[in-house]
Amino acid sequence: MNALGKHLLLELKDCDKEVLNDLSFLKSTLLAAATEAGATVLGESFHRFEPQGVSGVVIIAESHLFIHTWPEYGYVAADIFTCGNSVQPQKAAELLTEKLGSKNHSMIEIQRGILDTSRRLDSESRVV
Amino acid sequence: MNALGKHLLLELKDCDKEVLNDLSFLKSTLLAAATEAGATVLGESFHRFEPQGVSGVVIIAESHLFIHTWPEYGYVAADIFTCGNSVQPQKAAELLTEKLGSKNHSMIEIQRGILDTSRRLDSESRVV
Repeated sequence: MNALGKHLLLELKDCDKEVLNDLSFLKSTLLAAATEAGATVLGESFHRFEPQGVSGVVIIAESHLFIHTWPEYGYVAADIFTCGNSVQPQKAAELLTEKLGSKNHSMIEIQRGILDTSRRLDSESRVV
Repeated sequence: MNALGKHLLLELKDCDKEVLNDLSFLKSTLLAAATEAGATVLGESFHRFEPQGVSGVVIIAESHLFIHTWPEYGYVAADIFTCGNSVQPQKAAELLTEKLGSKNHSMIEIQRGILDTSRRLDSESRVV
């Protein structure tokens, strides 16, 4: 079965509430997760909400990483979407889980873009 | 069952290949999808790859919309992640499916941040 992308959906509960409203920490953590996965960072964008909560994206050549935090619940939704075989999204997932201090976490992995096996997958030939 | 976020994952196959490499069209289409859903746009970022393919995100106050296109396969992975009850992500999904001309599409809906029902959900009280 050929798939163009691998999409990890992390449910991170019982996180360290202190850090979930810390935009600077979250930005450096998501960038570190991208680097840990071996991804090429193209850009990032973060927003902090009032009274609390942060949304952030890191766009990578291999797709993207996203987090949305709810400090009031100690909850973070995080996505790691990658294509190609040169990256290791699992490493990014482990780093995020650890750095956010989640004590109750789960993950779903979804294959995106499942094509006919007769087609050649050459998405790795892309360059930025 | 209380959930903080609704996440729609669209698999759009057999799309109009001509438009999948058109960054300007894709940007306006994703922004239109956000507007169609009733979302508040905070920012956007798009990248075109060589020889083909576009990645783009629209960050909204209610979370995000994302697309990754593979013109060579006529395939688009699109995500619509929203929180709160003031938006209608299904409308964004319908607009994307139509504008990208997908003749073979499917969608998964995932509830994100399912918390104890004893906790009050006040995420809609956030402001930008």
